[in-house]
Amino acid sequence: MALALNREEVAAYLDEVFPQVRGDFRIDSLSEMRVTMRLLAHDRHLRPGGTVSGPAMFSLADVSAYVLVLGMVGRKALAVTTSCAIDFMRKPVSGVDLIAEGELLKLGRQLAVADVRLRSDGSEALVARASLTYAIPPER
Amino acid sequence: MALALNREEVAAYLDEVFPQVRGDFRIDSLSEMRVTMRLLAHDRHLRPGGTVSGPAMFSLADVSAYVLVLGMVGRKALAVTTSCAIDFMRKPVSGVDLIAEGELLKLGRQLAVADVRLRSDGSEALVARASLTYAIPPER
Amino acid sequence: MALALNREEVAAYLDEVFPQVRGDFRIDSLSEMRVTMRLLAHDRHLRPGGTVSGPAMFSLADVSAYVLVLGMVGRKALAVTTSCAIDFMRKPVSGVDLIAEGELLKLGRQLAVADVRLRSDGSEALVARASLTYAIPPER
Amino acid sequence: MALALNREEVAAYLDEVFPQVRGDFRIDSLSEMRVTMRLLAHDRHLRPGGTVSGPAMFSLADVSAYVLVLGMVGRKALAVTTSCAIDFMRKPVSGVDLIAEGELLKLGRQLAVADVRLRSDGSEALVARASLTYAIPPER
Repeated sequence: MALALNREEVAAYLDEVFPQVRGDFRIDSLSEMRVTMRLLAHDRHLRPGGTVSGPAMFSLADVSAYVLVLGMVGRKALAVTTSCAIDFMRKPVSGVDLIAEGELLKLGRQLAVADVRLRSDGSEALVARASLTYAIPPER
Repeated sequence: MALALNREEVAAYLDEVFPQVRGDFRIDSLSEMRVTMRLLAHDRHLRPGGTVSGPAMFSLADVSAYVLVLGMVGRKALAVTTSCAIDFMRKPVSGVDLIAEGELLKLGRQLAVADVRLRSDGSEALVARASLTYAIPPER
Repeated sequence: MALALNREEVAAYLDEVFPQVRGDFRIDSLSEMRVTMRLLAHDRHLRPGGTVSGPAMFSLADVSAYVLVLGMVGRKALAVTTSCAIDFMRKPVSGVDLIAEGELLKLGRQLAVADVRLRSDGSEALVARASLTYAIPPER
Repeated sequence: MALALNREEVAAYLDEVFPQVRGDFRIDSLSEMRVTMRLLAHDRHLRPGGTVSGPAMFSLADVSAYVLVLGMVGRKALAVTTSCAIDFMRKPVSGVDLIAEGELLKLGRQLAVADVRLRSDGSEALVARASLTYAIPPER
């Protein structure tokens, strides 16, 4: 399956519909069924001690899965997150970006399932792993 | 099991360790193994359209489970979230607080498991439901 | 919402489509959005030591959610499990039935979400808790 | 980290502690942090129509994660499953073995987290994906 929207088109759409997070996330690469995103190291995502907070990790996983669905299905899909199962495994490295590698495991007519793995930039160890399910409305 | 910390003590501790979310969350009630919290309706949690965002719902569920563990185990527990499974079921009502009812299902020596149900204030319908696992460090 | 099928009708349907588990599960009660089921204490579900195995607990949670969907939607729904998040919290009591209390948290057009809590018969302590999502085919 | 037990040692241990599933599962390969297992196509795992049932898929994911922990930690670990999040994505191919590829994402002192992907033998498409958490007792 080919992409419906490329990286630049998805990025422009995100800026338009989620202006409040502009400057927080960046799409490093987007290809068929795969994405790499980063959460830029900002004070506002931090826990005391300088590491990224759980909700910020959840956000990065969620937006990565959304970008995957959007890239494959296009703007007409008002896909909504229906579930997320996330395991937090290690403390992120303080003061560096958090990198998400997302893979669309299933893209059905009704449901999409994504797997997202989070690492601190420059590190191999997994910080967290999430699976996310998106419902794709029938009227697309 | 009795509470190790009461509502006021837990609230004071949260203000101290998470000053960046002060004013976002409020503990309505805290008793043995049960808590009711609210996420105050603020612009910063909102999606376009005025509803609470997924990450804000995750945060409310996570902090509710944290408050439960803290209330039962006390300050010495540097409990950390190890996993969360959350189902998003309905769109929250626009412009109102989000209410969490949390219950500690298990409080073991190593692990605590909480169930959290989210509703829009004044509404019976569930917006989301989460289970969260916290690891309790052995050295307590 | 009223039941589409009552307890006896659902039980007869289960016997017909899953003859291989006849005699394993029993529906104690079925009402709108709620079910109580039991897994009868049999040798074949047991781990060494006499407790119910994880897969048998998963089965009981899954069939409880299926019975809920079937009771509410009726036979025409060939609902399939799309996800399950289960927490195992305590060892079941050896040699007794396992009881499931299931609640349908959401019954949408495309998705149903159920919460199921498992206890050993005669005991208050939770053995496990599961959330299950069922996809309901669009052609019903 | 090196393996504490090799494939043959783990297989012998499984036969000893879970004699009731002997002949159902086979370890194809076991290396540091990775395992490939199969569920042999048997009538007893089948749904009407000849596909593998949800509980049988859960069992395969669970035993794969258990084999990973056992291989890395050795017999002294009486590790127990504490949670599982599983997504069922496609119907398994009728009448063929189900293959699990498992990876240990984290092996901590208290918790191990595994990712398991299931496919029908000879097929690339994912049938299911699971994350499983095992608690490792402190007294090892």
